[in-house]
Formats: sequence, structure tokens, C-alpha cells
Amino acid sequence: MPAPALTADEIADLLHEIFPQVVYPGCGISLERVDYGDVRVRRQFQETLLRPGGTVSGPAMMQLADFAMYVAVFSAVGRQPEAVTTNLNINFLRKPGHADLIADARLLKVGRRLVYGEVTIYSEGEGAPVAHATSTYSIPNADN
Amino acid sequence: MPAPALTADEIADLLHEIFPQVVYPGCGISLERVDYGDVRVRRQFQETLLRPGGTVSGPAMMQLADFAMYVAVFSAVGRQPEAVTTNLNINFLRKPGHADLIADARLLKVGRRLVYGEVTIYSEGEGAPVAHATSTYSIPNADN
Amino acid sequence: MPAPALTADEIADLLHEIFPQVVYPGCGISLERVDYGDVRVRRQFQETLLRPGGTVSGPAMMQLADFAMYVAVFSAVGRQPEAVTTNLNINFLRKPGHADLIADARLLKVGRRLVYGEVTIYSEGEGAPVAHATSTYSIPNADN
Amino acid sequence: MPAPALTADEIADLLHEIFPQVVYPGCGISLERVDYGDVRVRRQFQETLLRPGGTVSGPAMMQLADFAMYVAVFSAVGRQPEAVTTNLNINFLRKPGHADLIADARLLKVGRRLVYGEVTIYSEGEGAPVAHATSTYSIPNADN
Repeated sequence: MPAPALTADEIADLLHEIFPQVVYPGCGISLERVDYGDVRVRRQFQETLLRPGGTVSGPAMMQLADFAMYVAVFSAVGRQPEAVTTNLNINFLRKPGHADLIADARLLKVGRRLVYGEVTIYSEGEGAPVAHATSTYSIPNADN
Repeated sequence: MPAPALTADEIADLLHEIFPQVVYPGCGISLERVDYGDVRVRRQFQETLLRPGGTVSGPAMMQLADFAMYVAVFSAVGRQPEAVTTNLNINFLRKPGHADLIADARLLKVGRRLVYGEVTIYSEGEGAPVAHATSTYSIPNADN
Repeated sequence: MPAPALTADEIADLLHEIFPQVVYPGCGISLERVDYGDVRVRRQFQETLLRPGGTVSGPAMMQLADFAMYVAVFSAVGRQPEAVTTNLNINFLRKPGHADLIADARLLKVGRRLVYGEVTIYSEGEGAPVAHATSTYSIPNADN
Repeated sequence: MPAPALTADEIADLLHEIFPQVVYPGCGISLERVDYGDVRVRRQFQETLLRPGGTVSGPAMMQLADFAMYVAVFSAVGRQPEAVTTNLNINFLRKPGHADLIADARLLKVGRRLVYGEVTIYSEGEGAPVAHATSTYSIPNADN
């Protein structure tokens, strides 16, 4: 496996630059591991993520899946902030607990224009995943 | 086509009750039309929804697609606040402009336990859709 | 809506040329309507398509969905036999009867390199769809 | 991990019983490994699976993905021949070569009524996958 195109710290800086209102110290999101095309992102538990039934809302998990893929894309193709999701397919498997969410994103294809991968989301302390997503990102500046 | 199980006003009240911090007067989301299994939701344009490249972020559109399906589910099966997404598959087709987003959700199956439909999202003033989603909701209290 | 890039007869001839062992007079597949990006394909009922429970097999419907998209791609971009599926997502909604299957494919995006559409499959004589698919095709020769 | 509910030989016998015209000695499909919710199926290369561009057709890979999931379902829930696909989402990643296809199916959720898993398809002799699918099966007799 090659070295990641950007380190965890470089990606965290890039994310803060791109989304200053979303990613900042204390925002509750952290990059726990960044290898080439294989990353782990943690989303700290917050009461505001809950929905009826006391479970974390679907959109909060979709956003986390999309975010983890974005980090994985950076880990493989480097500084491409205009990379955009073209497809995301998510299946919700179990109710997450009142705990941090951990998202493992792993790329299965790194093409010049398209990157495809899967994201498995866990609720901290449980072995079985709470959600599983697949996603394709497009790299708009691939031809530059 | 049968009458909707709940009217637009009844669904808006229910949503405010379920998600008081998300759905309230002036929040920028409105239910424009509610027929049985066929609804239109409008998301007012806000600068905070933008991402690099000046386009509305993917998660904002995922959230809107999921929300429109939730409204469509209520229009068909009535007051089931614990209905949960089990699958959402979204394709991003074009960059939305700096304009309101309009989501048309239409159910293709209303089963006792599972509801399936599609959501087409438009950027106001443009004819071609910006995103298209399909989604399955599960009705947990179906057996009650 | 523009005229289709190829007529139903031209597409049928092209399909026979590409897949002589699959598409030929009497094979059970017919193109019932070809408009620009909007086509109807009929698959004649055959006992060999059945699976346990007496219903048409999933793969037979996947193949039909993929085939109807292929026809829709030709209707919009013309003679591109090397167009390939990059994604197909299919949901099975109801058990089809012992009847012909009718697939309506409709394109939502016709890009230079990617074409996206949806396919709704009906069992003849029933109003509610038996399956619904979305699919992306890639046009490999787009740059030629 | 528990023992599989059925062995490879028991599943092969069951498949032959269910689909005598598809699964039989010499048909080109073999079950290479059957663990609980984790199986490998091999599809022997045949010229008839090819499509324009000299690559294995999409529907042949969809069928293989669906078949591998079916085997994985049996490995976890036992003799349930009426289990049916409710969703299959497949992404085609690379052109397979003129070689056997190997499908690894792995279940991520084994519920009472719904089983969810992913299938990764390889072309023999290549490290990177040619296709990746996720799928949900429904177990109709779950209540018996």
C-alpha cells in the first residue's frame, strides 16, 4: 500500500480551511487514522443528533458516511477540495446507542476521475455495524 | 388516489413536535403540497448550505431527500413518527444554483411494514433535476 | 423533446448485431416504444424465468432493467455499443404474475460521459410496479 | 463465528433441487467456501458471458452477485429457498479479463426477516475487484 497522499493533520487543516464552520477544534469530529484509501473518522455523541425513538438520526449518519469518504478521497488523491459525491447508497442496519459513531472508509477503486469506496459505521462499544454505505466521488480537476 | 392520511398542516405540526429544533416557523422548510404518497417540500436557499465550488452540499440534499420521504410516508400511513429510513440511494446529477431546492417525493409501494419511493430534487427555476434518490422506510409499529 | 437518436428498428438491428444470441426475431424481447430518452421494452413471459415461489427470478428482472436502460441510452446518444453499466440499483416491490414484463426506462441526465436514468417494471395487467431501478451508464468513446 | 447453518455440499444440493436447469454438475458454478455468513462462489469463464468490448456482461455479474448472496443467506439462516432479493445495488469497477469470476459474499446483518450483505467480485489472477454489490434479502417464512 502506498503512503497516504496527505497525513491526518494535513487533511484536518484542509477540512478546516474548506468548511471552517463545520470542522474546527472541538467540533466533535476527529480523524483517528489515515492510511492510503483507508481511514477512520470519529463523531462524538451529541444529544442534538438524536431523533424520535432516541436514536441517532439517519441524516447525521449519511453526513458522517459522506465525510469519511471525503477524507478517504483526500488520503488517496491529495488536495482536491472540489471532489464531489456523485452517488451515496446507505443502509441502516441497527439502532446506534448513545455513543460515539466510528466510520471506517475504504476505497475499492481510485480512478483518475472517479473514486469508489465503502463506509462501515459502528456505535462505539458494539461489534456489529449500525450502517453501511457505498459511494462514488468525482474528481472535477482530474484533467488539470 | 385516496385522500392523504394527514394534511400538510397536520404533518407540519407533527414535524415541529418531533423535531422542534429543526422544523419551526421561519426554519426555511415548507410543505408545498401533500397528496396521498405524493408530496412537494421546499428548502429555502441559505448561504450556510454551500460547499467549495459554491454549490449546495451533498449532505444538505441527502437530508432534504430523506425529509421529503418522511413527509410522503406520513401522507400515506399517518402518524408514525418512529418510521425510520432503512435505505437511501442518492445520485447527484447537476450543480444546484443559488436558489431554493424543491423536492418531489412519490411513493411506489406502501406496504404494511415497508414503504418505498423516489425523490427528485430541483433547483428553483431549472427544468432538469439536480439530484434523484430512492428510499425505503420501515414502519416499526406496523404490528400494533 | 428532441427526436430519438435512433429509431426502434435501428436499435433492434443494432442489438441483434451486438448480441445475436440474445436478441433475434422470436427471442421474446420487443421494443414497444422509443422516444428520446424514454423507451418501453416488453419481455414475453416464459416458464424458464420462474424461480421458487413461482415468481419471475430477480436476475431476469435485473437483466431486463439493464437492457431497457441500454435501449434508452441508444435513444439519446445514438450508436454507442460499448456503453457500459457502471451502477445499477434495483428494488423488488411485488411478486410479478405469470405475465409479460413491461419495462419503462426514462433518462434523467444525458451527459457527455455519463447517462443516468430510472426503470420501472410492470407485470402486464397490473397497475402497481413490480420493480424499480436506477442506473448509470458510461459512454467510453465520448472523447472520440 | 457460529458454524454455517448448512455445509457447501448441502447448499449445492439445495440449489440443484431449486434450480435444476441452472445448478448441476458441470454447470460452471462452484461453492469454494462456506462459512457462517461468509462464502466464496466461483463462476467458470465462458465465451457466452462476453459482451461488446470483449468483457463479461453486466447481467452475468449481477446474477453472480445475487447468487453468492443467496448462498450466504443459506449459510446463515439455513433451508429457506423462498428467500428473495428485495434490493441489489451493484457498481462495476474494472473490466474483467477472460478468466473465472470469484464472488466473495459477506453478511453484515442477519435479522429475523431481513439479511444484508456485500459481495466483492474478482477476476481470477487480479488483485483489484471488478465489481462490488450490496444486497438485502427478505425471509418470507420468518414467522413460521
